[in-house]
Amino acid sequence: MRVAIVACGITPFGVRSATFRELAAEAGKAVLDDAENLNRSEIDALFVGTALPERFVHQGYTAPLIAEQLGLEPRIVSRCELACASGQAAMRAAYSSLTSHMCEIALVMGIEKMNSGSPEKVRHTLASILDTEWDAVHGLSAPSFFAMCAQRHIFEYGTTREQMAMVSKKNHGYAMTNPYAQFKKEVTVEEVLNSRVISPPLTLLECSAVTDGAAAVLITTEERAKTMTDTPVYIIGHGQKCTGNLTCNLPSLSGWVSLREAAGQAYRSAGITPQDIDLAEIHDCFSISEIMEYEGLGFCVSGEGGKFIEEGRSYVGGDVAVNTRGGLLGAGHPLGATGVAQAIEIVNQIKGRVPKSRYVKDIKYALSHNLSGNGSVHSVLIYGRN
Amino acid sequence: MRVAIVACGITPFGVRSATFRELAAEAGKAVLDDAENLNRSEIDALFVGTALPERFVHQGYTAPLIAEQLGLEPRIVSRCELACASGQAAMRAAYSSLTSHMCEIALVMGIEKMNSGSPEKVRHTLASILDTEWDAVHGLSAPSFFAMCAQRHIFEYGTTREQMAMVSKKNHGYAMTNPYAQFKKEVTVEEVLNSRVISPPLTLLECSAVTDGAAAVLITTEERAKTMTDTPVYIIGHGQKCTGNLTCNLPSLSGWVSLREAAGQAYRSAGITPQDIDLAEIHDCFSISEIMEYEGLGFCVSGEGGKFIEEGRSYVGGDVAVNTRGGLLGAGHPLGATGVAQAIEIVNQIKGRVPKSRYVKDIKYALSHNLSGNGSVHSVLIYGRN
Repeated sequence: MRVAIVACGITPFGVRSATFRELAAEAGKAVLDDAENLNRSEIDALFVGTALPERFVHQGYTAPLIAEQLGLEPRIVSRCELACASGQAAMRAAYSSLTSHMCEIALVMGIEKMNSGSPEKVRHTLASILDTEWDAVHGLSAPSFFAMCAQRHIFEYGTTREQMAMVSKKNHGYAMTNPYAQFKKEVTVEEVLNSRVISPPLTLLECSAVTDGAAAVLITTEERAKTMTDTPVYIIGHGQKCTGNLTCNLPSLSGWVSLREAAGQAYRSAGITPQDIDLAEIHDCFSISEIMEYEGLGFCVSGEGGKFIEEGRSYVGGDVAVNTRGGLLGAGHPLGATGVAQAIEIVNQIKGRVPKSRYVKDIKYALSHNLSGNGSVHSVLIYGRN
Repeated sequence: MRVAIVACGITPFGVRSATFRELAAEAGKAVLDDAENLNRSEIDALFVGTALPERFVHQGYTAPLIAEQLGLEPRIVSRCELACASGQAAMRAAYSSLTSHMCEIALVMGIEKMNSGSPEKVRHTLASILDTEWDAVHGLSAPSFFAMCAQRHIFEYGTTREQMAMVSKKNHGYAMTNPYAQFKKEVTVEEVLNSRVISPPLTLLECSAVTDGAAAVLITTEERAKTMTDTPVYIIGHGQKCTGNLTCNLPSLSGWVSLREAAGQAYRSAGITPQDIDLAEIHDCFSISEIMEYEGLGFCVSGEGGKFIEEGRSYVGGDVAVNTRGGLLGAGHPLGATGVAQAIEIVNQIKGRVPKSRYVKDIKYALSHNLSGNGSVHSVLIYGRN
């Protein structure tokens, strides 16, 4: 049985005055406005992907709160949490509920309200994603973890700082074409390298931001999808893998074993290869991540991720267009919203609803990828127009 | 396609010195010890049900942490959160992942470490389950909400305080037979009524406690289940409904519309009626809840829940044995663990692994039920031995 995305809604990402509830309402209205031939009482499942609302906005039990805010009374309801991959976790929950015939029309809401309280509070909250007793307590955080990955990648493969900065340049450039992106400013390689160092070698412009935002999609069965849109976007493959959680137990810092496994599963389940992917929305939480993901997703071999961006192979018109909405670096990274926003870019691209400058023609297959925590879990979905 | 529970593991419930991680390890070891013919590398999915670890123990992203603690490297991993129904939410996620052929052997871990920090912190954390901007801010909490339900039930139906106290008496009595229960002390109706008032009319002995604990089950396909146990316990029906979240929007305080819908779905999907249920593990977070649930689950008509307990119809040997492990009142209520602990009682009863004094003979069908928040969501699962 196949399922497809039939409607999308998203809020502008950034430092928003809107509350958690208001962000949900905004994305909820947008997705319902985008849905044709739908009475909202037909929505029989709601999956909310959000990482840390308990700490950011002191609100637990967010799924029923969002149901009420959107005027929904779903039969099936849950909040899915997998840190930075919470949005995709919610999409996967919708996928399994639909394919197991537990529901027919599922709304997936990815959401995070991160700008709430002091920077100290935000840092303290984000630190709780890592093992707080064994990793975070020693000062490890997301920037310092990915900085170690960058150092190791430089050491093992000779990846250059300029290559890393090129990821930020590309993604900030594409974000210029995305009215929902947090950042709308082109940056040069020099500007990236000269921005403030956050954790050596990574600079400010190589780190995704603290972002508020929500994104929602409606997913339904193939049969129902055909009554709602001429261009359903099918979810045709999925892969996920969890290996270890403590940083000291990760088999490598320069490459993610679990990403290779997740990607392999996803390609196999879709019956395709990495070379079939025309558009990839991947998890560039830091510049180095995107480079490591070119490799882990099989777009190039290990160690050649730096060259891959340098040769322009991840631009529109290259081997595979990567992060055309601006990625996490350009569009912002409201944790739970990111995975859903990536799916929306894929739908908008396939429907031709994006500006020409980032439009990828004739997409046959697309992919979205999220990592979570210190790369301990990787999650991949594959989409097709048929 | 059918799925079955094939192994169970649980920790003692109570005020534990064990940390969150240690509770997970304890229940994890127990469930793996209980699993026959299993190599742990075969476990390809992990669903963690936990409500508020971000606030109780400042730990997010708990699913990969638990995977590592148990030596698992699952392909599918997510944390499921639905406040007090988080354990059942995780079981439902496992059910849909199995029936959609995304995995073959799923471990479900329900867990909560609530005793951590001051009583003030615990109250503040628990308040975040309600809508913090519209309900909790006005002082509403779980005890005061259920106290309003009790007041309304008394007003509409003439339910007596003694009848409510009988629920506590019954469940504390059964908890005496359960070595994993938090409370091991018989209580009389008088003792219940004379204990400290928490929120009028509810007294201390009518309120479930602040509990640490974890419970885990292994769920797999029918085919694989038969290689692992002679008595697989099948999940044969499910129902859930979400109606509103703000207390002012609930259609009634004396009965839950969403419970009737959830129960109706569950019975229909299993092809049975309420009268077919031999054992029910239901959500007695407060004494009044169990009375309202007799009604909402169809064991008696509206308004007769008080009489139902008074006439002994929810004892072993009555119409339906209810909460034979001691319920939330007797066994304790570690939020995320509760739904899984209920399933374990059903498995243990069907396998004849419980003491005679609470043993229910010849169970054909059993049911577990959780409410969450202020009763806005009700979740029901139905189990059968065939």
